[in-house]
Amino acid sequence: MAKRVYSFGGGIAEGNADMKNLLGGKGVGLAEMSNLGVPVPAGFTITTEVCTEYYNNVREFPAGLDKDVEAAMKKVEKIMGHGFGDVDNPLLVSVRSGARVSMPGMMDTVLNLGLNDETIKGDEVMDKVKHEKGYTSDVDLTVDDLKDLVKRFKALIKAKLKRPFPDNPQEQLWEAIGAVFGSWNNERAILYRKMNGFDDDWGTAVTVQSMVFGNMGNTCATGVAFTRDPSTGEKAFYGEYLVNAQGEDVVAGIRTPQQVTLVSSRNWAKENGVSEKERKEKFPSLQECMPKAYDELVKVYTKLEKHYKDMQDIEFTIENEKLWMLQTRSGKRTAAAAVKIAVDMVNEKLIDKKTALIRIDPASLDQLLHPTFDPKAKKDVIAKGLPASPGASYGKVVFNADEAHEWAEKGEKVILVRIETSPEDLKGMNAAQGILTQRGGMTSHAAVVARGMGKCCVCGCGVLGINYSTRTMTVGSRVIKEGDFISLDGSTGEVMVGKVDTVEAKLSGNFETIMKWADEYKKLSVRTNADSPHDAAVARKFGAKGIGLCRTEHMFFEGDRIKAVREMILAEDLEGRKKALKKLLPMQKKDFTGILSAMAGYGVTIRLLDPPLHEFVPHDEESQKIMAKEMGISLEKVKARVESLHEFNPMLGHRGCRLGITYPEITEMQAQAIFEAACELKKKGVDVKPEVMVPLVGTFREIVIQKKIIVDTAEKVMAQKKIRVDYQVGTMIEVPRACLTADNIAAEAEFFSFGTNDLTQMTFGFSRDDAGSFLPEYVDRKIISVDPFKTIDRTGVGELMKQAVAKGRKVNKFLKIGICGEHGGDPNSIEFCHLLGLDYVSCSPYRVPIARLAAAHAVILNEEKKNGK
Amino acid sequence: MAKRVYSFGGGIAEGNADMKNLLGGKGVGLAEMSNLGVPVPAGFTITTEVCTEYYNNVREFPAGLDKDVEAAMKKVEKIMGHGFGDVDNPLLVSVRSGARVSMPGMMDTVLNLGLNDETIKGDEVMDKVKHEKGYTSDVDLTVDDLKDLVKRFKALIKAKLKRPFPDNPQEQLWEAIGAVFGSWNNERAILYRKMNGFDDDWGTAVTVQSMVFGNMGNTCATGVAFTRDPSTGEKAFYGEYLVNAQGEDVVAGIRTPQQVTLVSSRNWAKENGVSEKERKEKFPSLQECMPKAYDELVKVYTKLEKHYKDMQDIEFTIENEKLWMLQTRSGKRTAAAAVKIAVDMVNEKLIDKKTALIRIDPASLDQLLHPTFDPKAKKDVIAKGLPASPGASYGKVVFNADEAHEWAEKGEKVILVRIETSPEDLKGMNAAQGILTQRGGMTSHAAVVARGMGKCCVCGCGVLGINYSTRTMTVGSRVIKEGDFISLDGSTGEVMVGKVDTVEAKLSGNFETIMKWADEYKKLSVRTNADSPHDAAVARKFGAKGIGLCRTEHMFFEGDRIKAVREMILAEDLEGRKKALKKLLPMQKKDFTGILSAMAGYGVTIRLLDPPLHEFVPHDEESQKIMAKEMGISLEKVKARVESLHEFNPMLGHRGCRLGITYPEITEMQAQAIFEAACELKKKGVDVKPEVMVPLVGTFREIVIQKKIIVDTAEKVMAQKKIRVDYQVGTMIEVPRACLTADNIAAEAEFFSFGTNDLTQMTFGFSRDDAGSFLPEYVDRKIISVDPFKTIDRTGVGELMKQAVAKGRKVNKFLKIGICGEHGGDPNSIEFCHLLGLDYVSCSPYRVPIARLAAAHAVILNEEKKNGK
Repeated sequence: MAKRVYSFGGGIAEGNADMKNLLGGKGVGLAEMSNLGVPVPAGFTITTEVCTEYYNNVREFPAGLDKDVEAAMKKVEKIMGHGFGDVDNPLLVSVRSGARVSMPGMMDTVLNLGLNDETIKGDEVMDKVKHEKGYTSDVDLTVDDLKDLVKRFKALIKAKLKRPFPDNPQEQLWEAIGAVFGSWNNERAILYRKMNGFDDDWGTAVTVQSMVFGNMGNTCATGVAFTRDPSTGEKAFYGEYLVNAQGEDVVAGIRTPQQVTLVSSRNWAKENGVSEKERKEKFPSLQECMPKAYDELVKVYTKLEKHYKDMQDIEFTIENEKLWMLQTRSGKRTAAAAVKIAVDMVNEKLIDKKTALIRIDPASLDQLLHPTFDPKAKKDVIAKGLPASPGASYGKVVFNADEAHEWAEKGEKVILVRIETSPEDLKGMNAAQGILTQRGGMTSHAAVVARGMGKCCVCGCGVLGINYSTRTMTVGSRVIKEGDFISLDGSTGEVMVGKVDTVEAKLSGNFETIMKWADEYKKLSVRTNADSPHDAAVARKFGAKGIGLCRTEHMFFEGDRIKAVREMILAEDLEGRKKALKKLLPMQKKDFTGILSAMAGYGVTIRLLDPPLHEFVPHDEESQKIMAKEMGISLEKVKARVESLHEFNPMLGHRGCRLGITYPEITEMQAQAIFEAACELKKKGVDVKPEVMVPLVGTFREIVIQKKIIVDTAEKVMAQKKIRVDYQVGTMIEVPRACLTADNIAAEAEFFSFGTNDLTQMTFGFSRDDAGSFLPEYVDRKIISVDPFKTIDRTGVGELMKQAVAKGRKVNKFLKIGICGEHGGDPNSIEFCHLLGLDYVSCSPYRVPIARLAAAHAVILNEEKKNGK
Repeated sequence: MAKRVYSFGGGIAEGNADMKNLLGGKGVGLAEMSNLGVPVPAGFTITTEVCTEYYNNVREFPAGLDKDVEAAMKKVEKIMGHGFGDVDNPLLVSVRSGARVSMPGMMDTVLNLGLNDETIKGDEVMDKVKHEKGYTSDVDLTVDDLKDLVKRFKALIKAKLKRPFPDNPQEQLWEAIGAVFGSWNNERAILYRKMNGFDDDWGTAVTVQSMVFGNMGNTCATGVAFTRDPSTGEKAFYGEYLVNAQGEDVVAGIRTPQQVTLVSSRNWAKENGVSEKERKEKFPSLQECMPKAYDELVKVYTKLEKHYKDMQDIEFTIENEKLWMLQTRSGKRTAAAAVKIAVDMVNEKLIDKKTALIRIDPASLDQLLHPTFDPKAKKDVIAKGLPASPGASYGKVVFNADEAHEWAEKGEKVILVRIETSPEDLKGMNAAQGILTQRGGMTSHAAVVARGMGKCCVCGCGVLGINYSTRTMTVGSRVIKEGDFISLDGSTGEVMVGKVDTVEAKLSGNFETIMKWADEYKKLSVRTNADSPHDAAVARKFGAKGIGLCRTEHMFFEGDRIKAVREMILAEDLEGRKKALKKLLPMQKKDFTGILSAMAGYGVTIRLLDPPLHEFVPHDEESQKIMAKEMGISLEKVKARVESLHEFNPMLGHRGCRLGITYPEITEMQAQAIFEAACELKKKGVDVKPEVMVPLVGTFREIVIQKKIIVDTAEKVMAQKKIRVDYQVGTMIEVPRACLTADNIAAEAEFFSFGTNDLTQMTFGFSRDDAGSFLPEYVDRKIISVDPFKTIDRTGVGELMKQAVAKGRKVNKFLKIGICGEHGGDPNSIEFCHLLGLDYVSCSPYRVPIARLAAAHAVILNEEKKNGK
């Protein structure tokens, strides 16, 4: 039978850093710290396997666990010199959760076992007492207050559990262990796992640890710290602490914490307009306050970071001036910090390039690429809080997480404004553009979670007067109501009234370094989806090597073009259509000239007209009248044509190359525009590489017919222009049948580009436009493990892709294959494309860096897998 | 190099019956007849391979062919004693087409080479002359008339070809051979091949044969005959002939032909009110007229039928009382005749059962199963023609084939009424419910083609006065206008005014015999798609062994049920939905009781609710008002709900098991209704085998969740009713992803049923409702080789099915797999299902016999293929 309980403390431990899956992050952290000689209160960890046993066993503890726990507890008593349940010399313990991955605040923790049980309801009881007495902080409570509190808590517990609060410490211990295991499957933990793609089967470990007290007077303190700045990545020790407090006080953000180092304490005072005198009196740094403990802390953090070779997030308590380390783990950080720390650590020779790359979550780069506020924009700054998570955002003020979620579902941009946040607010935080809190520091719930989400957050903005019942927020005499727009700058902490214009992100040198390293490892090429020269230029700046999807129809809507398009659609015959297409030709040619120039030197995949024609005609009578007038025909005729274009399932209707088959003159015009543009550019010395892509091919004959038109047109144009350009003709692979018959299609197509949006729609039979009525429930209930429109469904859609690649390459071993669906910017999907052996991924310009890094991850992680790591 | 030219005549031949693909039907028939010692005018056949060479060679004859033809012609001259191009003793030849399959009237024939060229335009010239002179028949033409005719023909040819008519017989010969090859790709031949699924690459052979003349006076005749009655299958020699005529005269139906045998001549006279005296004088039988030639003909036909072991369609000419056989081939026949002949020939020990089965085209059985007129219905018979092709039909009178096609496209039922038909009318004949002609016999173009199509046809109804320009048809004083309804009885020849009620087909004992034999060979079980006890009973009578698809939602529309359904849809919450479902429960239970009883002893697959809910709510304001009133809620609420149910692509929307996932109470109600019905029936001793089918499953979890509800409900009901019934829970496989992940799904599903309609829609990305805008063109232009909604696309959709079968059976080797899409009644698709190793096909009741026979064909034909035949 596997060992179930691992002891630690007194300079030794049974576990070690390799046991993270078994002991959880917290458990291995404590074991490893013990092994390193770092002062850790003694304790023991019950493994995650026991959690799984517990659930498999219908929430019963496995037999024999009690004996193991008893033995471990004996060791703790011996090291700490107290007795568990000893009335005279009581050993108090904490019971904490700890999964293999950090799930901050998601699960239960039971502290001060034998004194009380901190539940959410409990907090309300305490708040009530504080409100009755007019107190603002826990430390204001008197002994009588506390006695009263305990009575009230016990009454509440009795009312809720229908049995009295257990006075037996053993009973308390087992209830606490059960509570922690149980909290693995509370609603917010499940949601958090789903959001992060964590497995429900991992389970949590339970660490029982002797309590040390930071709240036994003014020689006591408790704090959390990061070995480097989690916001900027700066190599500077950064932490917050509170004198005479418990750890939860710091994290919950109820009291405004003090800074650990003198430097950051002074900076904080400056930012908050606190004089040096006031600072020294009311908010001194730990460095000033308890210099011995501080020096010890510096030694310990340095040792820990060197040992773990990563920025650490540590928790400590000082009990009567003795430093105790409660936890260490890799610190959550902003993307900017992740990039800086990774590059710095390579330079410091702490880690190698591969490790540096893997340390950065590709998706997090999104944060760096998001726009910031236009420095020239007029800002009506009404307040300043802590710059808790960088970025710039605006939205309508909402004071409630549920409503934030609802408003966002309706398409509103919202800013969630709370006095402070708690795990219950997670859904609303996720839905919001940004988060603003009145209370709490840089390590408060709001700050930590927002950084994890890559969401703009301003914390601890104490000047705000938030009133949930009137749904208003006041700053001095200014009143902001629910629904009013505000803007947040997560990098400066500024809060502004109204919408503030944003500008593009500027990227640091470290970012460029990381991207360069990524390119050294990645095998996939990264292209972009771009329909305009501007987008092409942006993507090129982000490192795109070509365009994987240029949607020509987007150009059809611009300015006066739509008139010509409608004229073409309304034409009675080929003659009429050709006349209208002739008007479109120079416009399309201009588009292609711009795009081919912007991406000179790289391949530009231009997709022929794809959407059904009814998307181009107006459906309301007013617009139809205007159209009729403009075209000089009767309203009835317009209506009849619009009616005839109606389709029951336009997704599966007359679109894609089906249009090019029935109206070959459209394909011809588009090909002519492409090749005239290409030839003329080449004459001017521009290196053009047009790739004409036929959409929605499902049968061999479709590509044969369309290719012939394109090739004939290309040859005609090149003969006229007396210059040859290299070009390719290929297909979008987006119909299941195209995958199944890819060998036939590859005999004719020179490249494949997976259109995974449509391929997913048809493979699942999900219309993306309509799936809102059931897909969210499917994802919530895990009927499907991922939203297949976000991440490629490897089992189904991926299987089709695999078959298509194998069949295509069998016929043409040099067939170029890429992906241009939205999955091309999703890291998990990019890994899959790498595994399939595709040549490139193509994504929106802002996701190009993400794709480059994800492509490098795919190589490195799969090398590791191959090597058995 | 392959032999290109095969000679025959004078009791020997170079070819034989095994060379059909090479020499065409006509060519092998003549060779084989020569070999049998049947009197055949000598000639030779140029192979179909030469036709292919000709086309590959840009319509140039291959080198060396001229030498081969010259040598063969020499042989003919020797046997016949005439010289080709010899002015004193000219050998005249015919040049005829002949493909491996019969394509009656589709290609060109050049007769009397050196005299004229019978083209359609040519016929107009002859008609003009006849009209000018007031003649009714070709034999009325005088020598001067004919001289005039030749002059006019030559002028016409010159005008058309821009060069004079070639007087050199050699030149004529080569032009004629080229014309026949060329006619392989004329429009009507291409259309005919497409309709019949014949390959464009087969090519036609050209048979050059010495002419014998049935039009050299009254000791000459020409005729066509069937060795058995092609309409009923009766073992009776049946033929028509004309004295002093050419073969084309009989087929074209310009003169009313006489009967070959005395018996049928007398019958004919009786049916047409012709006195025996008049008959003997004007319409004597060949038996009476030329008894010696008749006796010879009887000997020959008996020999031929015995040799070919099949009913023969023969052409003969009598030149100066000498019988010449021009052609023999398997005779086209009605389905009833095919069945009778097949059974009779087995009884006569001419053929075995397998051959008998293969002789009957499964699709043709449709004719036998079509309704006939209700004998009790009031009929307003206005005329009687020849019962050319059996069946009963009614429709609006249309006088023009193109218009018949157009009207039918719009959904009108039409009867095509023509003086006579020609190959140009094919499209209109195909579109019509039935065909009525004024002129022509049982072997006229209209009759032969209609029988092939299984379409009701009345021919040679001479009493009709058809006026194309006024678009009227008169019978005595009665005038029927275009658009008026008439009814045709193809089995009696009756023409009726108005719509006449029809009744179900009654099946002959021979039919039952064939079905019994089919069941002996077939491996696939045949079920039916039925939504009502009535349909189930009809299908059972046709031999269905169970129901493969019972669509529960069809029941939702009946009577008052739709109210309860709408109440359910409009309900605000679970409570409200459950209340409405409670009302539906007894109704559904009654349905299932009826269906399970009607199919007692066999499995009944009941599909849970499938269509999107918006199909059940009214979309026009008037109906919405009524609904609002009935439900006692506001119109706005009704509108809002209807609006909320709108989907952009309902095919890919909230339907199938997605409804059962979001509204589990619907699944529960349906399961309850099924199991209450089943339990109560079983208590009464009825053998019930319910199989609950979950539609649109695409993921493993869907079937898990739905199956749990069904099983839980079943157990609950069975416990309540204190009886157990055997049941299964399975899935419809209709989403591509279900095929790709069939191994997962098979772990839970007890059976698979391919829903090939939806599977085809999603695999191709074709919405069946919308594909009308391009699919016909796709089929016409052979962009897809078959209409995938009619016949399974083996390459794409079939590949998915293959993978699903393999994956499903890998997990569960006893997995029951069937098909319930409309392809389940299509013979080609049934063969594919057999090859895939499915357990059953399910089709509409009237297609059950077709499926049984097709399933037997699949076994027999694939055994033959395996044996290398």
